[in-house]
Amino acid sequence: MASLNSGFLFALVIVLAVSGGVWAGFLKYETRAGPVEGKLNVHLVPHSHDDVGWLKTIDQYYVGSNNSIQGACVANILDSLVVSLLKDPNRKFVFAEQLGFDSLYFARIDYQDRAKRKVDKSLEVIWRGSKTFGSSSQIFTSAFPVHYSPPTGFNFEVNDEIEVNHDTSPIQDDPRLYDYNVEQRINDFIDAARTQANVTRTNHIMWTMGDDFQYQYAESWFKQMDKFIHYVNKMGLLWQDGRVNAFYSTPSIYTNAKNAANESWPLKTDDYFPYADSANAYWTGFFTSRPTLKRYTRMLSGYYLAARQLEFLAGRRSSGPHTFSLGDALGIAQHHDAVTGTAKQHTTNDYAKRLAVGASEAEMVVSLALSCVTNSSSSRQCATSTLNFGQCHLLNISYCPPTEEEIPENKSLVVVAYNPLGWIHNDTVRIPVNDDHHVIRDSSGNTIEAQYVEMDNATINLRNFYTKAYLGVSAKGTPKHWLLFQVSVPPLGWSTYFISKGASSGHMSVTDTSQNETLEVGPGNLKMSFSSTSGQLKRMTNYRTGVDIPIQQSYLWYGSSIGDKDTKASGAYIFRPDGAPPTAASRSVPLKIVRGPLVDEVHQQFNPWIYQVTRLYKDKDHAEVEFTIGPIPVDDGVGKEVITRMTANMATDRTFYTDSNGRDFLKRVRDYRTDWPLEVTQPVAGNYYPISLGIYMLDGKSELSVLVDRAIGGASIQDGELELMLHRRMVQDDSRGVVGALDEIVCMEDTCEGLTIRGYYYININQLGSGARWRRTVGQQVYSPLLLAFTHEEEQSWKASHLVNATSMDPNYSLPPNAAVITLQELDDGNVLLRLAHVYEAGEDAEYSSMANVELKKIFATKMIKEVKETSLSTNQDKSEMRSMKWKVKGDNGESPAPVRGSLVNNATLIVELGPMEIRTFLLKF
Amino acid sequence: MASLNSGFLFALVIVLAVSGGVWAGFLKYETRAGPVEGKLNVHLVPHSHDDVGWLKTIDQYYVGSNNSIQGACVANILDSLVVSLLKDPNRKFVFAEQLGFDSLYFARIDYQDRAKRKVDKSLEVIWRGSKTFGSSSQIFTSAFPVHYSPPTGFNFEVNDEIEVNHDTSPIQDDPRLYDYNVEQRINDFIDAARTQANVTRTNHIMWTMGDDFQYQYAESWFKQMDKFIHYVNKMGLLWQDGRVNAFYSTPSIYTNAKNAANESWPLKTDDYFPYADSANAYWTGFFTSRPTLKRYTRMLSGYYLAARQLEFLAGRRSSGPHTFSLGDALGIAQHHDAVTGTAKQHTTNDYAKRLAVGASEAEMVVSLALSCVTNSSSSRQCATSTLNFGQCHLLNISYCPPTEEEIPENKSLVVVAYNPLGWIHNDTVRIPVNDDHHVIRDSSGNTIEAQYVEMDNATINLRNFYTKAYLGVSAKGTPKHWLLFQVSVPPLGWSTYFISKGASSGHMSVTDTSQNETLEVGPGNLKMSFSSTSGQLKRMTNYRTGVDIPIQQSYLWYGSSIGDKDTKASGAYIFRPDGAPPTAASRSVPLKIVRGPLVDEVHQQFNPWIYQVTRLYKDKDHAEVEFTIGPIPVDDGVGKEVITRMTANMATDRTFYTDSNGRDFLKRVRDYRTDWPLEVTQPVAGNYYPISLGIYMLDGKSELSVLVDRAIGGASIQDGELELMLHRRMVQDDSRGVVGALDEIVCMEDTCEGLTIRGYYYININQLGSGARWRRTVGQQVYSPLLLAFTHEEEQSWKASHLVNATSMDPNYSLPPNAAVITLQELDDGNVLLRLAHVYEAGEDAEYSSMANVELKKIFATKMIKEVKETSLSTNQDKSEMRSMKWKVKGDNGESPAPVRGSLVNNATLIVELGPMEIRTFLLKF
Repeated sequence: MASLNSGFLFALVIVLAVSGGVWAGFLKYETRAGPVEGKLNVHLVPHSHDDVGWLKTIDQYYVGSNNSIQGACVANILDSLVVSLLKDPNRKFVFAEQLGFDSLYFARIDYQDRAKRKVDKSLEVIWRGSKTFGSSSQIFTSAFPVHYSPPTGFNFEVNDEIEVNHDTSPIQDDPRLYDYNVEQRINDFIDAARTQANVTRTNHIMWTMGDDFQYQYAESWFKQMDKFIHYVNKMGLLWQDGRVNAFYSTPSIYTNAKNAANESWPLKTDDYFPYADSANAYWTGFFTSRPTLKRYTRMLSGYYLAARQLEFLAGRRSSGPHTFSLGDALGIAQHHDAVTGTAKQHTTNDYAKRLAVGASEAEMVVSLALSCVTNSSSSRQCATSTLNFGQCHLLNISYCPPTEEEIPENKSLVVVAYNPLGWIHNDTVRIPVNDDHHVIRDSSGNTIEAQYVEMDNATINLRNFYTKAYLGVSAKGTPKHWLLFQVSVPPLGWSTYFISKGASSGHMSVTDTSQNETLEVGPGNLKMSFSSTSGQLKRMTNYRTGVDIPIQQSYLWYGSSIGDKDTKASGAYIFRPDGAPPTAASRSVPLKIVRGPLVDEVHQQFNPWIYQVTRLYKDKDHAEVEFTIGPIPVDDGVGKEVITRMTANMATDRTFYTDSNGRDFLKRVRDYRTDWPLEVTQPVAGNYYPISLGIYMLDGKSELSVLVDRAIGGASIQDGELELMLHRRMVQDDSRGVVGALDEIVCMEDTCEGLTIRGYYYININQLGSGARWRRTVGQQVYSPLLLAFTHEEEQSWKASHLVNATSMDPNYSLPPNAAVITLQELDDGNVLLRLAHVYEAGEDAEYSSMANVELKKIFATKMIKEVKETSLSTNQDKSEMRSMKWKVKGDNGESPAPVRGSLVNNATLIVELGPMEIRTFLLKF
Repeated sequence: MASLNSGFLFALVIVLAVSGGVWAGFLKYETRAGPVEGKLNVHLVPHSHDDVGWLKTIDQYYVGSNNSIQGACVANILDSLVVSLLKDPNRKFVFAEQLGFDSLYFARIDYQDRAKRKVDKSLEVIWRGSKTFGSSSQIFTSAFPVHYSPPTGFNFEVNDEIEVNHDTSPIQDDPRLYDYNVEQRINDFIDAARTQANVTRTNHIMWTMGDDFQYQYAESWFKQMDKFIHYVNKMGLLWQDGRVNAFYSTPSIYTNAKNAANESWPLKTDDYFPYADSANAYWTGFFTSRPTLKRYTRMLSGYYLAARQLEFLAGRRSSGPHTFSLGDALGIAQHHDAVTGTAKQHTTNDYAKRLAVGASEAEMVVSLALSCVTNSSSSRQCATSTLNFGQCHLLNISYCPPTEEEIPENKSLVVVAYNPLGWIHNDTVRIPVNDDHHVIRDSSGNTIEAQYVEMDNATINLRNFYTKAYLGVSAKGTPKHWLLFQVSVPPLGWSTYFISKGASSGHMSVTDTSQNETLEVGPGNLKMSFSSTSGQLKRMTNYRTGVDIPIQQSYLWYGSSIGDKDTKASGAYIFRPDGAPPTAASRSVPLKIVRGPLVDEVHQQFNPWIYQVTRLYKDKDHAEVEFTIGPIPVDDGVGKEVITRMTANMATDRTFYTDSNGRDFLKRVRDYRTDWPLEVTQPVAGNYYPISLGIYMLDGKSELSVLVDRAIGGASIQDGELELMLHRRMVQDDSRGVVGALDEIVCMEDTCEGLTIRGYYYININQLGSGARWRRTVGQQVYSPLLLAFTHEEEQSWKASHLVNATSMDPNYSLPPNAAVITLQELDDGNVLLRLAHVYEAGEDAEYSSMANVELKKIFATKMIKEVKETSLSTNQDKSEMRSMKWKVKGDNGESPAPVRGSLVNNATLIVELGPMEIRTFLLKF
């Protein structure tokens, strides 16, 4: 072992460069190429797909720790990229994913769709995703012919020995070494380019030169691409016909080249769901995978919206606490392996931890802001307020220390309800309490009606296990009752309620012990009828609207396929039932019905691990279904994917509707795709669609709609049926890289069991054409519920120093029913970001699918608006500077009517017009 | 997918450095540290062990192709190292392996030896490897406590996810990210340093920061080492006692630190063979693995020596051909995975191909040089000579087109024999011919005696299969006879023989058909006696010396162990017999004895795949044994390791001798190690030693010596026995990384079979004390045989224009019997490199183990020596500048006598003195 210091080594390497193998020392590779008219132009687009968190956590990926799971270090990618890019200004690089403005490129498209599009060269299309906007909101969209990796044989990652790249050889262009292969590799390149050209319109093709976590030593890639560009352009002429031209490029350059070509592009209108990578591998499992993470993310997303509003109303504190860390965690949790549930368990834990840390800081923001804005004295006291509002994120399992605590003598439990919606919000509040002797008064001092419901065992069991497992807290005793009372809260404002000990102002719920065959439930207009013998739901009737639909509801599960020789098992990504009909949880379900003035509840234990409470509220047009599912048993070796199914007597003609990202509802037709004749291989999994907001179906006279509390998968497998997949537990990995079954386990001390989930969905029946109004309004309420904050104080003293019922808007104003505030946030620079959205599609509602007017002066009634600047959605561009590319589209006759869109905001009136589905973004200065 | 060009990306990264995770942008790591007195100094020695060719070929490793076998690219290592070293002058790097001058560091030491040395801190020793030189040739030698990798948990290769490094975490020192671990990692570092300090003398320890093909993105390592140096030195003080100090270092710096310490070092005298990494894993299989590659390398090594001599004698042609490519290929083939036989088959093929390409060019050098030097006209004609001398590298399987061809009418087959030795060489030449009507005349015109031996079937079968398989040549017919005649060639000179058609001047060999029980064979003083019934050798007798030893000889094979749960099977590295006694190839062997004036031959077919010819020559004191072994059958699923065993009636007291690199003979004692009490786990494999030159044993009056034609393994498992492992074929991999059984297959068109090998060993019996003279002299002859070149020419015309018998030395001079020319080569710069070696050890021979004098003026009789400069062995240093370090050695009383060494060369006499075993290196100018 001879030793050299660094200086000597450098000398040694230089010597090698002269006498040894560093041929590059002699040869300057020509990389200045760009597109050439008339040639087949190969755009080499260097990129790296760096999952935010998947097999490892985001920070592990960044620093390169935990490499026994995956050799991946983003710091190495960044560091080595900088060195490589500085070497040659012709080199380019893109970080894959986020949002494009003129174009969209992606890999994962249904295998049948892809095959058909390759034949007719329609992988690249003009996509008009919205019925409402039509051609005014279109984007050039390109699905890759294979994947986002390079053509086979052109991956050059350092140290890469993975099998998939077994036929990759670097260009060896030093004739003094063995295996000189320039001609062979250039021919490979040209062959691969021609293969791709055969399925692509125009003479421009894009090669995505990268893959997951590639460029850890970037030079390893660029060195080879330099050579390919050099030799393809120079030597291709000698060996081939010289018609191939290669160069460093980006999606922008490629999009411009496509746009400049005189080509009419195929049109695409619906979306790309569901995705199957092969016959039995539908990626429709992830719609539901990890339902608690999905709910946690959704819940905190709504909470974040409210917290930012309060942060703005109270004035952002530069010293903190901030809502940033929650926003950051929510941003991270939007990664496609995060909220989908396709990350490893430890990574999922990391996502949840970040959310919890962020939520914890945001709770402080909310507590401080509420102290400030409710205080009736000068706003200067905001900064010094030390009032601590308790908030209860575990109300769903009855854990809420401020309401469980004994209310001190002479004090009240002060409940402040903040409403982040732009409309008044009337709701029924439900809190756990220890006895049934309370008096509830509103801000005017009126005693209001209340109802007590006995705490059920399912909730108590969850509470005991999960508070210990997740918080490390052994809750003292268990609350005996739920206390319910109605509240009414003004838009962007709050109301205050005072609960004190005393003779009860509430009604104890009554258990229905009648023996009738049919039991009708519901204190208001909406009724549900149950069979007392089978326990089954029989029909829903709304006496106000006269809609009456026979309907059953049940729980079932699909047995998960364990795969075949192709190892396509059901797993985190893939939903593949074993082919048998789903198993029903029970044939008959004992009923327990409790009734009261505010709510009737139907309690049903479907089987030892499925519990359901159906609630019908006095003033609501929907049933609220609370489901508690788990632990799903897998000791029989069979994974189970649990659904609830509603079977209505409706002729739905294979058709149902699901939302796209909570906005447009897309028409879905069973066993059918608009873009190609579907070969049905998976009659269930292949008909599943993602549901973020809701699902509905209709017949000639009625609509049956269901809204959900988190993203899940759903389908209509038979006419008149809707099913929602609520929970999944598997014993096999689905071979899509995550390596591990989706088998969520929760441990309390030494006791471990499968994850139990609890959640809600909401069922509405309506006349044909009237369902949208319920879906859009209740959808906003579900996403942005009232924010409850609790403290203990003497009622009169509180009233003396606080505003108990107020709105930050003009007290006489509320947003029109078709408009919503979707962002209201004070930015670092003092600007205020406001996003307003029209919540109806064109033609969705006879009255509300029209232009909405929002009056900024009335929203910000107490402030003076100095400046209003409209920007792009992401605020990075002035609206006035935005230009969209023009594209020619096959078969486009230009006759579709222009969509309704709001006009420019008049600086005097400051009224914002919103057309259907329109979202407008403003930066305000006060 | 958003797109950025390189400029933008750079801006992005800078932004990240400010707001994101590139903490290093703020913190300057302090890497200027060096040794600190009184602290535990951890020398971090960055290195990469880059096998020349192992799983991939040398060029594949360099360019990074064939990565499906192994992700390894030396170009990436070099490129990224330069960038990393330029970043910080404190960083250092060494390329592992080659030869050190003051110190030697290595990893592979017997597991029992290592364990014992860790206990008594004797991993680091002063090694005196030569009895002859004693303390005058010692070196500081350090065996690593574990391996040449870093302590567990400190490997930082990019993209590394191999299991062995599962506990490696990079330092995460950005407190804004999760998993901050500075304290934990520094504690790990300090713990690992203390663990190593516990088995190491002085307060200096070395960490070998690298492994096989590491530093493919060098920054990935240096980034972490920067941090460790920084934090260990700064923060260690806070958390520990601050007594650990870390810094970038090299073996030189470490050696200097060791040398500066006031320490007496343990002494080590013998070598480190055999090596076992665990109880049943003796790396003694590779001594024999791939015996044909070993022979090919050895044969070409001798040929290269002769070719360089001729290149010098004729004058090196700057325009080529050169011997460089053969030298290069031989250098590459010296890699430890090459000649050992532990590379993959395709890599082995690459080694062989390089050797063949090099040999092919060297043949042209030899042909041109012989044309030139034998030409009696002015030397100017050298450059234009077009005479083509055929040379026959496949003589061993009777393939030699020039001798097989019909000799043209009026012409002779001209045979030029060149002798690269410094002494006259008398030998019997053997060439294949097609009939028995030849007249052979020497350069003086005298007809000389010849003998014909019928070609045997074993040779014909080999010839037919292998010329087709290796050369693609279907030899026309087969030669009927071997023609043998005696030649005598002057030192560094040549003789010419003329073979013409005519009445034979030779004797046809006679087959012995006598029926005596004992058959004595041999035309000269040395006789061998065989039993005509069993076919077994019974005794050897030398009638000149009177030595007479009863001796049997046989072939056997060990069944290869297929391993146990530790998967320690026999394989390319490991020799692990299955535990049963070896199986004899046969009980009785039919004999065929042919006799003639020059040689008697005993032909024996031991079994269908082992054939042997024993030859006793008229004027030789040894038997030449030609063995032909293969294809070894493995269709019974059992690997076989074939040995020949000689059982002599000698009381050898467990002791035998094997050479070390062809120079010193080391004493070996069965089941015994000098340095520790051996626990015998493998009674056969654990007693195997490498044999490059020979093996011998002795009793009170006689010596039995065997010389070999290639490196093999050998042992003495019972007193009086010597065994040589000649061939191996296995069906299991031995789990040492090569992944694949050592199962050499040769294909001719569609016919594939196991490799057959042919080779020679030489048996000598001698009086006690006299064997060395035979071993040293015949050893030189075996290594540097006569180089034969053939052409066809009219005898008289040849004689008129050529020197037919000449030496380049003074015609009356030859080197003394104890001195040899081991290198004679013209360098690129015109200097001539001459290495002279004494070939006896001190005390080895009563007469020859004395000072030898070599007269340079007489070696270069026809040239004028202008300058003689003595240098180090590798010529990189003037001898006068060489200094060796002084070391204190435990128990060294300084009383051992100084070795005999030659004094400085007197510029007038130019006589070089050589003490026993001395090698002296000179650069000459003429």
